[in-house]
Amino acid sequence: MPPPLHVAFLAGPEGSWRIDAIRAIAGPSLPEAPRLAVAEGPPAPAAGDCAWVLRATTSNMRYTYHAEAAALRARQESLSRPQATRAVLIPIRKTEAWWAMAQDERRAIMEEQSRHIGIGLDYLPAIARRLHHGRELGEPFDFLTWFEFAPEHEAAFDELLARLRATPEWDHVDREVEVRLTREG
Amino acid sequence: MPPPLHVAFLAGPEGSWRIDAIRAIAGPSLPEAPRLAVAEGPPAPAAGDCAWVLRATTSNMRYTYHAEAAALRARQESLSRPQATRAVLIPIRKTEAWWAMAQDERRAIMEEQSRHIGIGLDYLPAIARRLHHGRELGEPFDFLTWFEFAPEHEAAFDELLARLRATPEWDHVDREVEVRLTREG
Repeated sequence: MPPPLHVAFLAGPEGSWRIDAIRAIAGPSLPEAPRLAVAEGPPAPAAGDCAWVLRATTSNMRYTYHAEAAALRARQESLSRPQATRAVLIPIRKTEAWWAMAQDERRAIMEEQSRHIGIGLDYLPAIARRLHHGRELGEPFDFLTWFEFAPEHEAAFDELLARLRATPEWDHVDREVEVRLTREG
Repeated sequence: MPPPLHVAFLAGPEGSWRIDAIRAIAGPSLPEAPRLAVAEGPPAPAAGDCAWVLRATTSNMRYTYHAEAAALRARQESLSRPQATRAVLIPIRKTEAWWAMAQDERRAIMEEQSRHIGIGLDYLPAIARRLHHGRELGEPFDFLTWFEFAPEHEAAFDELLARLRATPEWDHVDREVEVRLTREG
Protein backbone atom coordinates (compact mmCIF):
# COMPACT_ATOMS: atom_id res chain seq x y z
CA MET A 1 0.00 0.00 0.00
CA PRO A 2 2.11 2.94 -1.25
CA PRO A 3 1.26 6.52 -0.20
CA PRO A 4 -1.38 8.30 -2.29
CA LEU A 5 -0.25 8.73 -5.90
CA HIS A 6 -1.48 11.79 -7.78
CA VAL A 7 -2.61 10.86 -11.30
CA ALA A 8 -3.68 13.22 -14.08
CA PHE A 9 -5.63 11.99 -17.12
CA LEU A 10 -4.98 14.42 -19.99
CA ALA A 11 -7.15 14.22 -23.11
CA GLY A 12 -5.78 15.99 -26.16
CA PRO A 13 -3.48 15.55 -29.16
CA GLU A 14 -0.92 13.37 -27.34
CA GLY A 15 -0.69 10.29 -25.17
CA SER A 16 -0.10 6.58 -25.50
CA TRP A 17 -3.81 5.74 -25.47
CA ARG A 18 -6.12 6.30 -28.45
CA ILE A 19 -9.62 7.38 -27.41
CA ASP A 20 -12.05 5.08 -29.23
CA ALA A 21 -15.27 6.43 -27.72
CA ILE A 22 -16.57 8.76 -25.02
CA ARG A 23 -20.09 8.03 -23.85
CA ALA A 24 -22.20 9.75 -21.18
CA ILE A 25 -23.97 7.21 -18.97
CA ALA A 26 -25.50 9.78 -16.57
CA GLY A 27 -25.27 13.57 -16.71
CA PRO A 28 -23.13 15.54 -19.16
CA SER A 29 -20.39 13.89 -21.22
CA LEU A 30 -16.78 15.02 -21.65
CA PRO A 31 -15.52 16.73 -24.84
CA GLU A 32 -14.19 14.58 -27.66
CA ALA A 33 -10.41 14.23 -28.01
CA PRO A 34 -8.11 11.94 -30.02
CA ARG A 35 -5.73 10.68 -27.33
CA LEU A 36 -5.23 10.30 -23.59
CA ALA A 37 -2.02 10.63 -21.56
CA VAL A 38 -1.77 9.31 -18.01
CA ALA A 39 0.67 11.28 -15.83
CA GLU A 40 1.63 9.93 -12.42
CA GLY A 41 3.32 12.05 -9.76
CA PRO A 42 3.17 15.57 -8.35
CA PRO A 43 0.54 17.73 -10.09
CA ALA A 44 1.88 19.66 -13.09
CA PRO A 45 -0.02 22.33 -15.02
CA ALA A 46 -1.84 20.89 -18.02
CA ALA A 47 -0.63 21.78 -21.50
CA GLY A 48 -2.84 24.45 -23.05
CA ASP A 49 -4.03 22.19 -25.86
CA CYS A 50 -5.81 19.64 -23.67
CA ALA A 51 -9.53 19.09 -24.27
CA TRP A 52 -9.90 18.09 -20.63
CA VAL A 53 -7.82 17.07 -17.61
CA LEU A 54 -9.10 14.99 -14.72
CA ARG A 55 -7.05 14.59 -11.55
CA ALA A 56 -7.34 12.27 -8.57
CA THR A 57 -5.22 10.24 -6.16
CA THR A 58 -4.99 6.64 -5.11
CA SER A 59 -5.80 6.13 -1.44
CA ASN A 60 -6.32 3.60 1.32
CA MET A 61 -9.23 1.13 1.26
CA ARG A 62 -12.43 2.88 2.26
CA TYR A 63 -14.94 -0.01 2.43
CA THR A 64 -13.03 -3.25 1.88
CA TYR A 65 -12.82 -5.63 4.85
CA HIS A 66 -9.81 -7.76 5.73
CA ALA A 67 -11.07 -11.02 4.17
CA GLU A 68 -12.15 -9.21 1.00
CA ALA A 69 -8.77 -7.50 0.71
CA ALA A 70 -7.04 -10.87 1.04
CA ALA A 71 -9.26 -12.37 -1.68
CA LEU A 72 -8.52 -9.42 -3.99
CA ARG A 73 -4.77 -9.60 -3.34
CA ALA A 74 -4.73 -13.31 -4.11
CA ARG A 75 -6.28 -12.85 -7.56
CA GLN A 76 -5.70 -9.35 -8.89
CA GLU A 77 -2.98 -8.43 -11.35
CA SER A 78 -1.20 -5.11 -11.77
CA LEU A 79 -1.56 -2.47 -14.47
CA SER A 80 0.59 -2.35 -17.62
CA ARG A 81 0.49 -6.06 -18.54
CA PRO A 82 1.72 -6.32 -22.16
CA GLN A 83 -1.44 -8.11 -23.31
CA ALA A 84 -3.75 -5.53 -21.68
CA THR A 85 -4.04 -3.20 -24.68
CA ARG A 86 -7.56 -2.04 -23.89
CA ALA A 87 -8.41 0.39 -21.11
CA VAL A 88 -11.53 2.13 -19.92
CA LEU A 89 -11.59 5.25 -17.74
CA ILE A 90 -14.85 5.71 -15.83
CA PRO A 91 -15.30 9.04 -14.04
CA ILE A 92 -18.16 8.94 -11.53
CA ARG A 93 -19.78 11.45 -9.22
CA LYS A 94 -22.13 10.34 -6.46
CA THR A 95 -25.04 12.32 -5.04
CA GLU A 96 -24.77 14.66 -2.05
CA ALA A 97 -27.22 12.32 -0.28
CA TRP A 98 -24.70 9.48 -0.69
CA TRP A 99 -21.93 11.51 0.92
CA ALA A 100 -24.18 12.59 3.79
CA MET A 101 -24.74 8.95 4.81
CA ALA A 102 -22.77 7.42 7.68
CA GLN A 103 -20.01 4.90 6.93
CA ASP A 104 -22.09 1.83 7.79
CA GLU A 105 -24.98 2.98 5.57
CA ARG A 106 -22.71 3.46 2.54
CA ARG A 107 -20.96 0.14 3.17
CA ALA A 108 -24.34 -1.66 3.43
CA ILE A 109 -25.53 -0.29 0.09
CA MET A 110 -22.21 -0.89 -1.60
CA GLU A 111 -21.47 -4.42 -0.50
CA GLU A 112 -24.25 -6.09 1.48
CA GLN A 113 -26.91 -4.89 -1.00
CA SER A 114 -24.89 -4.41 -4.20
CA ARG A 115 -21.94 -6.85 -3.88
CA HIS A 116 -19.64 -4.33 -5.54
CA ILE A 117 -16.46 -5.96 -4.21
CA GLY A 118 -17.84 -9.44 -4.86
CA ILE A 119 -18.79 -8.66 -8.47
CA GLY A 120 -15.33 -7.23 -9.14
CA LEU A 121 -13.74 -10.42 -7.79
CA ASP A 122 -15.62 -12.47 -10.41
CA TYR A 123 -13.60 -10.77 -13.16
CA LEU A 124 -10.13 -11.20 -11.69
CA PRO A 125 -7.45 -11.59 -12.87
CA ALA A 126 -8.65 -10.66 -16.39
CA ILE A 127 -9.70 -7.11 -15.52
CA ALA A 128 -7.04 -5.07 -13.69
CA ARG A 129 -8.25 -1.95 -11.94
CA ARG A 130 -7.05 1.11 -10.07
CA LEU A 131 -9.33 3.49 -8.18
CA HIS A 132 -8.55 7.21 -7.80
CA HIS A 133 -10.34 9.70 -5.52
CA GLY A 134 -10.97 13.28 -6.68
CA ARG A 135 -13.64 14.62 -4.32
CA GLU A 136 -11.25 16.23 -1.82
CA LEU A 137 -9.29 17.80 -4.69
CA GLY A 138 -12.33 19.86 -5.72
CA GLU A 139 -12.61 17.85 -8.96
CA PRO A 140 -15.87 17.42 -10.92
CA PHE A 141 -15.79 13.64 -10.33
CA ASP A 142 -15.55 11.81 -7.00
CA PHE A 143 -13.90 8.73 -8.54
CA LEU A 144 -11.84 7.91 -11.60
CA THR A 145 -11.61 4.17 -12.10
CA TRP A 146 -9.08 2.87 -14.59
CA PHE A 147 -9.55 -0.64 -15.99
CA GLU A 148 -7.11 -2.58 -18.20
CA PHE A 149 -7.69 -5.88 -20.01
CA ALA A 150 -6.81 -7.84 -23.14
CA PRO A 151 -9.12 -7.44 -26.16
CA GLU A 152 -10.57 -10.94 -25.66
CA HIS A 153 -11.90 -9.89 -22.26
CA GLU A 154 -13.91 -6.91 -23.50
CA ALA A 155 -17.20 -8.86 -23.38
CA ALA A 156 -16.48 -9.85 -19.77
CA PHE A 157 -15.75 -6.23 -18.96
CA ASP A 158 -19.06 -5.14 -20.51
CA GLU A 159 -20.84 -7.72 -18.36
CA LEU A 160 -19.05 -6.42 -15.24
CA LEU A 161 -20.24 -2.89 -16.02
CA ALA A 162 -23.82 -4.01 -16.68
CA ARG A 163 -23.94 -5.93 -13.39
CA LEU A 164 -22.58 -3.00 -11.37
CA ARG A 165 -24.91 -0.48 -13.02
CA ALA A 166 -27.92 -2.63 -12.13
CA THR A 167 -27.13 -2.51 -8.39
CA PRO A 168 -28.76 -0.28 -5.72
CA GLU A 169 -25.42 1.50 -5.34
CA TRP A 170 -25.87 2.99 -8.82
CA ASP A 171 -29.06 4.79 -7.68
CA HIS A 172 -26.58 7.12 -5.95
CA VAL A 173 -24.53 7.90 -9.09
CA ASP A 174 -25.47 11.26 -10.54
CA ARG A 175 -22.81 11.58 -13.23
CA GLU A 176 -20.94 8.86 -15.10
CA VAL A 177 -18.88 8.90 -18.29
CA GLU A 178 -17.21 5.98 -20.06
CA VAL A 179 -13.98 6.57 -22.00
CA ARG A 180 -12.86 3.55 -24.11
CA LEU A 181 -9.19 3.35 -25.06
CA THR A 182 -6.65 1.31 -27.03
CA ARG A 183 -2.92 1.40 -26.29
CA GLU A 184 -0.83 2.70 -29.19
CA GLY A 185 2.57 3.58 -27.86
CA MET B 1 -22.95 17.72 4.96
CA PRO B 2 -21.51 20.39 2.63
CA PRO B 3 -19.02 19.42 -0.11
CA PRO B 4 -15.37 19.25 0.97
CA LEU B 5 -14.07 22.62 2.14
CA HIS B 6 -10.41 23.41 1.56
CA VAL B 7 -8.85 25.02 4.64
CA ALA B 8 -5.35 26.49 4.99
CA PHE B 9 -3.75 27.14 8.38
CA LEU B 10 -1.12 29.87 7.96
CA ALA B 11 1.33 30.55 10.77
CA GLY B 12 3.16 33.87 10.58
CA PRO B 13 2.92 37.53 11.51
CA GLU B 14 -0.85 37.80 10.90
CA GLY B 15 -4.11 36.11 11.78
CA SER B 16 -6.86 36.38 14.34
CA TRP B 17 -5.41 33.66 16.57
CA ARG B 18 -2.40 34.21 18.84
CA ILE B 19 -0.16 31.14 19.07
CA ASP B 20 0.40 30.48 22.79
CA ALA B 21 2.46 27.29 22.44
CA ILE B 22 3.61 24.72 19.91
CA ARG B 23 4.53 21.36 21.35
CA ALA B 24 5.72 18.18 19.62
CA ILE B 25 3.94 15.10 20.99
CA ALA B 26 5.50 12.62 18.54
CA GLY B 27 8.08 13.27 15.83
CA PRO B 28 9.38 16.71 14.84
CA SER B 29 7.63 19.91 15.89
CA LEU B 30 6.59 22.86 13.72
CA PRO B 31 8.52 26.17 13.69
CA GLU B 32 7.55 28.87 16.17
CA ALA B 33 5.36 31.74 14.91
CA PRO B 34 3.37 34.52 16.61
CA ARG B 35 -0.05 34.13 14.95
CA LEU B 36 -2.28 31.82 12.96
CA ALA B 37 -4.74 32.66 10.17
CA VAL B 38 -7.38 30.17 9.05
CA ALA B 39 -8.34 30.56 5.37
CA GLU B 40 -11.35 28.68 4.02
CA GLY B 41 -12.00 28.21 0.33
CA PRO B 42 -10.09 27.47 -2.87
CA PRO B 43 -6.34 27.09 -2.28
CA ALA B 44 -4.41 30.35 -2.59
CA PRO B 45 -0.63 30.68 -2.57
CA ALA B 46 0.72 31.37 0.90
CA ALA B 47 2.24 34.75 1.65
CA GLY B 48 6.02 34.60 1.59
CA ASP B 49 6.39 35.50 5.24
CA CYS B 50 4.62 32.44 6.65
CA ALA B 51 6.58 30.21 9.04
CA TRP B 52 4.45 27.26 7.90
CA VAL B 53 1.24 26.48 6.04
CA LEU B 54 -0.80 23.33 6.51
CA ARG B 55 -3.65 22.47 4.14
CA ALA B 56 -6.45 19.92 4.27
CA THR B 57 -10.12 19.48 3.44
CA THR B 58 -13.25 18.53 5.30
CA SER B 59 -14.79 15.31 4.01
CA ASN B 60 -17.52 12.74 4.53
CA MET B 61 -17.60 10.50 7.62
CA ARG B 62 -15.03 7.72 7.25
CA TYR B 63 -15.74 5.56 10.32
CA THR B 64 -18.82 6.94 12.08
CA TYR B 65 -21.92 4.75 12.04
CA HIS B 66 -25.49 6.01 11.72
CA ALA B 67 -26.37 5.90 15.43
CA GLU B 68 -23.08 7.55 16.37
CA ALA B 69 -23.64 10.31 13.80
CA ALA B 70 -27.11 10.95 15.25
CA ALA B 71 -25.69 11.16 18.79
CA LEU B 72 -23.02 13.61 17.63
CA ARG B 73 -25.51 15.77 15.73
CA ALA B 74 -27.79 15.95 18.78
CA ARG B 75 -25.04 17.35 21.00
CA GLN B 76 -22.33 19.06 19.00
CA GLU B 77 -22.11 22.81 18.46
CA SER B 78 -20.59 24.68 15.57
CA LEU B 79 -17.33 26.60 15.35
CA SER B 80 -17.04 30.36 16.02
CA ARG B 81 -19.15 30.56 19.19
CA PRO B 82 -18.38 33.95 20.80
CA GLN B 83 -17.36 32.37 24.11
CA ALA B 84 -15.02 29.87 22.42
CA THR B 85 -11.89 32.00 22.55
CA ARG B 86 -9.46 29.10 22.88
CA ALA B 87 -8.54 26.80 20.02
CA VAL B 88 -6.12 23.95 19.54
CA LEU B 89 -4.88 22.70 16.17
CA ILE B 90 -3.60 19.12 16.25
CA PRO B 91 -1.84 17.89 13.12
CA ILE B 92 -1.43 14.10 13.10
CA ARG B 93 0.20 11.59 10.78
CA LYS B 94 -0.51 7.89 11.11
CA THR B 95 1.84 5.05 10.23
CA GLU B 96 2.01 3.37 6.83
CA ALA B 97 0.93 0.17 8.60
CA TRP B 98 -2.27 1.91 9.71
CA TRP B 99 -3.11 2.92 6.15
CA ALA B 100 -2.39 -0.56 4.83
CA MET B 101 -5.08 -2.06 7.07
CA ALA B 102 -8.53 -2.87 5.72
CA GLN B 103 -11.49 -0.67 6.66
CA ASP B 104 -12.89 -3.05 9.31
CA GLU B 105 -9.47 -3.37 10.99
CA ARG B 106 -9.05 0.40 11.29
CA ARG B 107 -12.63 0.83 12.52
CA ALA B 108 -12.11 -1.89 15.16
CA ILE B 109 -8.99 -0.23 16.55
CA MET B 110 -10.50 3.24 16.42
CA GLU B 111 -13.87 2.60 17.99
CA GLU B 112 -14.39 -0.93 19.32
CA GLN B 113 -10.93 -0.89 21.01
CA SER B 114 -10.31 2.83 21.51
CA ARG B 115 -13.79 4.39 21.75
CA HIS B 116 -12.56 7.44 19.84
CA ILE B 117 -16.06 8.57 18.85
CA GLY B 118 -17.46 7.71 22.27
CA ILE B 119 -14.75 9.67 24.14
CA GLY B 120 -15.38 12.71 21.93
CA LEU B 121 -19.10 12.54 22.77
CA ASP B 122 -18.31 12.85 26.47
CA TYR B 123 -17.01 16.40 25.89
CA LEU B 124 -19.91 17.74 23.82
CA PRO B 125 -21.14 20.41 23.54
CA ALA B 126 -18.26 22.16 25.36
CA ILE B 127 -15.57 21.18 22.83
CA ALA B 128 -16.44 21.96 19.20
CA ARG B 129 -14.37 20.20 16.60
CA ARG B 130 -13.74 20.04 12.85
CA LEU B 131 -11.65 17.34 11.16
CA HIS B 132 -9.67 18.00 7.98
CA HIS B 133 -7.94 15.41 5.76
CA GLY B 134 -4.57 16.15 4.15
CA ARG B 135 -3.21 12.76 3.10
CA GLU B 136 -4.53 12.83 -0.48
CA LEU B 137 -3.24 16.41 -0.91
CA GLY B 138 0.34 15.22 -0.42
CA GLU B 139 0.55 17.10 2.89
CA PRO B 140 2.96 16.16 5.74
CA PHE B 141 0.01 15.40 8.06
CA ASP B 142 -2.91 13.04 7.40
CA PHE B 143 -5.28 14.94 9.70
CA LEU B 144 -5.61 18.47 11.03
CA THR B 145 -8.15 18.59 13.85
CA TRP B 146 -9.34 21.99 15.00
CA PHE B 147 -10.90 22.27 18.46
CA GLU B 148 -12.64 25.35 19.95
CA PHE B 149 -13.81 25.88 23.53
CA ALA B 150 -14.28 28.51 26.24
CA PRO B 151 -11.35 29.07 28.65
CA GLU B 152 -13.21 27.34 31.50
CA HIS B 153 -13.26 24.10 29.47
CA GLU B 154 -9.50 23.89 28.95
CA ALA B 155 -9.09 21.30 31.73
CA ALA B 156 -11.81 19.16 30.14
CA PHE B 157 -10.03 19.47 26.80
CA ASP B 158 -6.74 18.35 28.37
CA GLU B 159 -8.52 15.32 29.81
CA LEU B 160 -10.00 14.51 26.39
CA LEU B 161 -6.51 14.59 24.85
CA ALA B 162 -5.03 12.44 27.61
CA ARG B 163 -7.76 9.81 27.21
CA LEU B 164 -7.37 9.65 23.42
CA ARG B 165 -3.58 9.46 23.60
CA ALA B 166 -3.83 6.49 25.98
CA THR B 167 -5.84 4.41 23.47
CA PRO B 168 -4.59 1.61 21.18
CA GLU B 169 -5.36 3.88 18.20
CA TRP B 170 -2.52 6.17 19.26
CA ASP B 171 0.01 3.32 18.79
CA HIS B 172 -0.50 4.07 15.09
CA VAL B 173 0.28 7.81 15.34
CA ASP B 174 3.81 8.53 14.16
CA ARG B 175 3.76 12.33 14.24
CA GLU B 176 1.66 14.67 16.35
CA VAL B 177 1.98 18.37 17.15
CA GLU B 178 -0.19 20.48 19.44
CA VAL B 179 -0.71 24.18 18.65
CA ARG B 180 -2.50 26.14 21.44
CA LEU B 181 -4.25 29.36 20.44
CA THR B 182 -6.20 32.31 21.82
CA ARG B 183 -8.56 34.41 19.70
CA GLU B 184 -7.53 38.05 19.42
CA GLY B 185 -9.40 39.59 16.54
